[in-house]
Amino acid sequence: MIRVNENYLTLQSSYLFSEIAGRLTDFKQKNPGREIIKLGIGDVTCALPEACIKAFHKAVDEMADERTFHGYGPEQGYGFLREKIALHDFKEHGAEVGADEIFISDGAKCDSGNIQELFAQDAVVAVPDPVYPVYVDTNVMAGRGGRWQDGGYSGLVYLPSTGENGYVPEIPSAQVDVIYLCFPNNPTGAVIGREQLQTWVDYARENKSLIIYDAAYVAFIRDISLPQSIFELPGARSVAVEIRSFSKTAGFTGTRCAYTAIPKECTAYTKDGSAVSLHDLWLRRQTTKFNGVSYPVQRAAEAVFSAEGGRQVRDLINYYLRNAQLIRDTFSALGYHCTGGDNSPYIWIRTGMESWDFFTLLLEKAGVVCTPGSGFGRCGRGYVRLSAFNNHEQVVKAMDKIKKVLSQT
Amino acid sequence: MIRVNENYLTLQSSYLFSEIAGRLTDFKQKNPGREIIKLGIGDVTCALPEACIKAFHKAVDEMADERTFHGYGPEQGYGFLREKIALHDFKEHGAEVGADEIFISDGAKCDSGNIQELFAQDAVVAVPDPVYPVYVDTNVMAGRGGRWQDGGYSGLVYLPSTGENGYVPEIPSAQVDVIYLCFPNNPTGAVIGREQLQTWVDYARENKSLIIYDAAYVAFIRDISLPQSIFELPGARSVAVEIRSFSKTAGFTGTRCAYTAIPKECTAYTKDGSAVSLHDLWLRRQTTKFNGVSYPVQRAAEAVFSAEGGRQVRDLINYYLRNAQLIRDTFSALGYHCTGGDNSPYIWIRTGMESWDFFTLLLEKAGVVCTPGSGFGRCGRGYVRLSAFNNHEQVVKAMDKIKKVLSQT
Repeated sequence: MIRVNENYLTLQSSYLFSEIAGRLTDFKQKNPGREIIKLGIGDVTCALPEACIKAFHKAVDEMADERTFHGYGPEQGYGFLREKIALHDFKEHGAEVGADEIFISDGAKCDSGNIQELFAQDAVVAVPDPVYPVYVDTNVMAGRGGRWQDGGYSGLVYLPSTGENGYVPEIPSAQVDVIYLCFPNNPTGAVIGREQLQTWVDYARENKSLIIYDAAYVAFIRDISLPQSIFELPGARSVAVEIRSFSKTAGFTGTRCAYTAIPKECTAYTKDGSAVSLHDLWLRRQTTKFNGVSYPVQRAAEAVFSAEGGRQVRDLINYYLRNAQLIRDTFSALGYHCTGGDNSPYIWIRTGMESWDFFTLLLEKAGVVCTPGSGFGRCGRGYVRLSAFNNHEQVVKAMDKIKKVLSQT
Repeated sequence: MIRVNENYLTLQSSYLFSEIAGRLTDFKQKNPGREIIKLGIGDVTCALPEACIKAFHKAVDEMADERTFHGYGPEQGYGFLREKIALHDFKEHGAEVGADEIFISDGAKCDSGNIQELFAQDAVVAVPDPVYPVYVDTNVMAGRGGRWQDGGYSGLVYLPSTGENGYVPEIPSAQVDVIYLCFPNNPTGAVIGREQLQTWVDYARENKSLIIYDAAYVAFIRDISLPQSIFELPGARSVAVEIRSFSKTAGFTGTRCAYTAIPKECTAYTKDGSAVSLHDLWLRRQTTKFNGVSYPVQRAAEAVFSAEGGRQVRDLINYYLRNAQLIRDTFSALGYHCTGGDNSPYIWIRTGMESWDFFTLLLEKAGVVCTPGSGFGRCGRGYVRLSAFNNHEQVVKAMDKIKKVLSQT
C-alpha cells in the first residue's frame, strides 16, 4: 500500500497567497465591475529591461540554428552568467564568492524550499516571525515542524521581529542549527546593519550553525552603509548560504532565474562530527534533481550586468521605490506606524485591528488588496504588508482612495 | 551544530554522465585534435522547430510591454498549455486526463526526482534494472536506499529487464508500494505492449501500489498498437502518475519544459488507511516549492500542438529515428544482439565484454562516445546504450568507423 508523507497533513490551511486569491475571486463575483488595485502579492508589473529583451531574442535565434543550438546546459548554470554574478554582485562589493560557488536556478522560492533537503531530519530550525511561508512549510513537509499549536509549529524556533527590536530578530537563547534570515525583509521591509548581521555570523561560527541568507530584495538597498551580501562580513563564508533572484531585481517573476551562492568552505557535519562540504552536497542535489535553467533565460539574465542593463535595472527599481515612498508617506501621514519602503519594496503597517479585518476593510471600502500580516506568523498579527509593485498611477489612485477611507474611520 | 542528511553520504560515486564527461575530458587532453562523435548522453542536436521559435519570440515581445507583460504565472502552468496537452496528448489517444490534472514543470528529471517527497519514508520502492539513475538516487537521498551492496541498494526492489523478458520487467513476488516504469525505456529502448502494461495496472490496483510512468520518449512510438499513455488503460487513473517532457519531443533539453499528469482519483493512504488525494499533495508541493515555468517557454511549448508545429515535430523525430535505424542495423549486421531503435532513440547493445571496456574500445579506436550499460544497474553490465541524437552525417561517420573497428576485433 502506497502511504503518504504524513508531514504534509500537518500543514496548516492553504498557502497564504492562494487564500488571498480565493477571497478576491469571491469579492469579484459579488461585486462585478468594481475596480481593484492589487498591492498584495509581491509581483512586478513593469516590462523586462530592454537589454534583457534584446539578449533574450538573440538567444532564441541561436536555438533556431543547429550550429548555435543549446541542448542540456550545466546543471549549475552557464559560466558566462556565474562569472558576471561573481564579479558584479560580490567582488565589486568586497565579498569573496567564486563563479564555481554559484548555482543558477529557476527561482529563489525553489532554492529556499529545496536547501533543507541537505540537513538532518532532526535539525533545529529557526525562522523569523513574521516569515516568508516557504521556509516554514518546506521544513514542515520534511518532518521538522512538530505539532501545530497556538499559531505556530512546536518543532520550529521562531525569532520575533517586532517594533521593539526594529524588526531585526535577536540571537535566540536556545541553540539552533539552521537560521533563515531575509534582508531586506519580506514581509516587513526592514533592513539589517553590518554590526547586527555580524552578531549572527559570530553566533553561527560559535555554534556551528548555518545561516540561510535570503537577499532576494537586495537591489532595493539605497543606503550604502548597509551590507548587500552576508559574504561582505568576515567569517561568513564557512557558515552561510546566500539566495538571490532576478525576479525583483529585473522583473523576472514570470521569466524565472535566481541563484544560490555556497562557498566551498561552508561546512556541515555528520553525527560523529566529521565535516562535510555543503557546496558538494548541493552540487550533488542539483545534478541529480535539476537540469539547469533555460538557455535563453540565462542569456536574458546576463544582460542585467551589461552597462545598459545596469542602468535600466536601476531605473526600474527607482520606479518602484518611488511607489514605496508614496505608500509609506500616505500611511505615516494617516498616523500609522510603518517600517520598510525605503530600502525595500514592502511597507509593513501596524493596523490597530486584526490583519484580515484590515484586509477586508481595504478591499471593500477602497478596492485595494493588501497582504494580511497574520499570514506570515504570530508577530504579523495586527499588521498588513503593502507592496510597491504596481503601476505608479495605480498606486497614486490607491493611496487617494485609502486616504479617504481611513480618514473617515 | 548543523548536521547533514547522511543519506546523501550513502550515494555511490558520481552521477553517471559526470563520470563520462570526466573520462572524455581526460581523453581529449591526451589526444588533442582527435575527432570525437558523441552518441552517449541523450541530448538532442537539431534546432527547435520553427513554430516554437516563432511563438518564443512573440512571447518575449509580450514581456517587453507592460500591457502584455507576464509576472508570476500559475505554479501549475498556464491553462493555454494544459488544455492543449489534455486534448492532444490524452483525449485524442483515448485517455481521460483533464487540464486541471496536468502540472507543467521545468523538467521530467525534476518531476521524477521530486515526486518521491510525497511518499512515506519507509515506502518500498521498485525500480527497473537497468534504470535511469534519477529514480534510484532521489530515493536514496530520501533514506529509502538502505545499504549499498553487490552493486545495488539493499532497500530497493530491482526489477530485472533482460533479454529473457524482452526488457519488460515482470511483476515482483514481493509486495511493493511504488513502481517506476519507463516506456519507451531509457536506457534499453524497449517498449511495452498494452496487455503487459495492463498487468502492471492490475497489480497496482490489487496491491494499492502506485505506478510512476515515465513517458518522456513517447514521441518516438511509431507502432500504433502500442499504448502512448498509461491512462489509455482501464483502471489506471487511480493508481498511476505519468511524466512527460518536451525535451525529446521537440528538442527542449536546453529550453526546459515538461509535465506530470496526476488524475484526481489517484490515491495514496495514511498509516491508518485513510485515502489521500495525490493530486492535492502534489499541488501543495508545487505551490510551496515551485514558481512555474518561464512564460515564453510555455508559449514555445504550446506551439508544438499547432498544425505547423505538429508537422515539424514529426519530421524532427523521424530524423532521429532514421539515425536509430542506422545504428541498430549496423550493430545487428556486426552480429550484436540489440533492442530499441525502432520506437525509441536508444539502442541497447549486448557487447560481450565489460561495459566500460566497450566504452573505452569505442572511444579509443573509433572516437565514438557511448554510455556504459553498467552505469544503469547490474542488469546493464555487458551492455552499452547508443543514442540517435546527433547530426545524421555524424552518425553515418560514426557507424563507418565502428564497422571498421569492430570487424577487426
